Amino acid sequence: MNEFQLIKQYFQQPDLNFSNEYTALKSGDDCAAFSLPSDLELHFSIDTLVEGVHFPENANPFDIATRAVAVSISDLAAMAAIPIGFTLAITLPELKQDWLQRFSEGLIQAAQFYQCPLMGGDTTKGPTLVITVQVHGVCETGQSLKRSGAKEGDKVYVSGPIGDGAGALPLVIEDPCLNSGLAKQFYAPIAQVGYAQKIKTSANSCLDISDGLVQDLNHICHASGVGMTIDPKAIPLSKELLATYGKDKALQYALTGGDDYQLAYTAPHCQFGVCIGEVVKGKQVTVQGMDLSSGGFQHFI
Amino acid sequence: MNEFQLIKQYFQQPDLNFSNEYTALKSGDDCAAFSLPSDLELHFSIDTLVEGVHFPENANPFDIATRAVAVSISDLAAMAAIPIGFTLAITLPELKQDWLQRFSEGLIQAAQFYQCPLMGGDTTKGPTLVITVQVHGVCETGQSLKRSGAKEGDKVYVSGPIGDGAGALPLVIEDPCLNSGLAKQFYAPIAQVGYAQKIKTSANSCLDISDGLVQDLNHICHASGVGMTIDPKAIPLSKELLATYGKDKALQYALTGGDDYQLAYTAPHCQFGVCIGEVVKGKQVTVQGMDLSSGGFQHFI
Repeated sequence: MNEFQLIKQYFQQPDLNFSNEYTALKSGDDCAAFSLPSDLELHFSIDTLVEGVHFPENANPFDIATRAVAVSISDLAAMAAIPIGFTLAITLPELKQDWLQRFSEGLIQAAQFYQCPLMGGDTTKGPTLVITVQVHGVCETGQSLKRSGAKEGDKVYVSGPIGDGAGALPLVIEDPCLNSGLAKQFYAPIAQVGYAQKIKTSANSCLDISDGLVQDLNHICHASGVGMTIDPKAIPLSKELLATYGKDKALQYALTGGDDYQLAYTAPHCQFGVCIGEVVKGKQVTVQGMDLSSGGFQHFI
Repeated sequence: MNEFQLIKQYFQQPDLNFSNEYTALKSGDDCAAFSLPSDLELHFSIDTLVEGVHFPENANPFDIATRAVAVSISDLAAMAAIPIGFTLAITLPELKQDWLQRFSEGLIQAAQFYQCPLMGGDTTKGPTLVITVQVHGVCETGQSLKRSGAKEGDKVYVSGPIGDGAGALPLVIEDPCLNSGLAKQFYAPIAQVGYAQKIKTSANSCLDISDGLVQDLNHICHASGVGMTIDPKAIPLSKELLATYGKDKALQYALTGGDDYQLAYTAPHCQFGVCIGEVVKGKQVTVQGMDLSSGGFQHFI
């Protein structure tokens, strides 16, 4: 099987390469193309997952695929953009047809769930499995949610339970193919695309929680020139996280863990989400009753 | 140095992150964004280079960067799209500041040369150096050059000498930091962006020669439902390639080598380029006087 046959068999299928109203050219030429009305902006974000770094070795290829697409689409959700297509660059150590089949099935599930087709890609050989996904989405011109809009007096909200992604990590390291309970949050996080549409008119700032709640909220503080005070007792923690780790450890995962892909946002008032604090004068996040040096997921520390 | 400091120091500089008329949002939020008039289509292509596979270990980081950007932009040139921005996902085995500095300088040179700014990216740690670049470009709606437009009676053209990229490969494997003469064609191929603009009204089909002349022309044959007959004596070969390898080997590189990034295109008549054959009834490329099974660069053979 050569590169072209591989692409045809695993990456060109009607359920994966479907068209939508923005598709001008699908794969088959040197480029793919979008055609957009001028009142929409094209948002895009690129993310890489490396085997042994971002997911454990011997993870289920279906799960790797769903995670790769979801964590990238989460960046679109963070700005209230609607997914319209993605590209995939995959570096494979070897050609295992069974692996590729299951990976392809994961891509199809994600593409169908988010209605976001695969538009093009590159397949290469290399010593380590590396998966890079770039997602593209649309938003009315000037209407996307940014990190820089938080205002003193805003309340700080999160879209759902925090800490599950980080709490899942030790479990999937122990058993790379575990995909139930907490572990499901690691492999199949739900990018909050629909949720973002509900809050976009009320929110002043937003991002997705990928690096850890405190660190991500500090990104908003930095971009907006504000501080925040967070009530740790208000942070929503899932029953599964609490049952697995107890209250203190669960809270630690929530504050510094990362990999959650819930949204954090500020608004004068929002009927959706859980209010966990407020925007104040200052430069950074403080968590009431805690002395937290800003933690979160970073490479090269 | 953490991930954010690294990005700030090496990937956020005025000569690299500049704006153009299509820039809606630069990096700093979860996505970057383009704003386009509705009479332009956004073309995009993603390409990965893996150390030890697509370039030799210990290559000069400046050269790796210029090559990574150029080979991706070549896909835009192949369709007559004008570059407007790129994203970069880089996986690094270790943090070497000197390496990053020179890599960054290469990115800047390419960004300036093609007037194509870095719009966003992802920096990750992994066991192997892997560089993925996605380029974005614009073209008037419906006007991009495709593989499927070749017509019986068209002549077949190439934009310049063929074979230099493949001829350079053994030299850079021998000396990864060589960057003069033929080797320059490997590390700093020139994507034919301006050339494509000159031929776009006369050409019926086009692509860039990345997999090898015969294999790439077969892509046009397959997409257009035609055959081609190529005169090997008409294929332009550079003096450097001929001087290094002699006529027979030079021609072999030209026909099957790949990595050239010249354009191959068909047109009833074109005042630019070198005519090397014509489009005929049939299904594939034949090279006069040669029995060539279709060769070219493929993984997993």
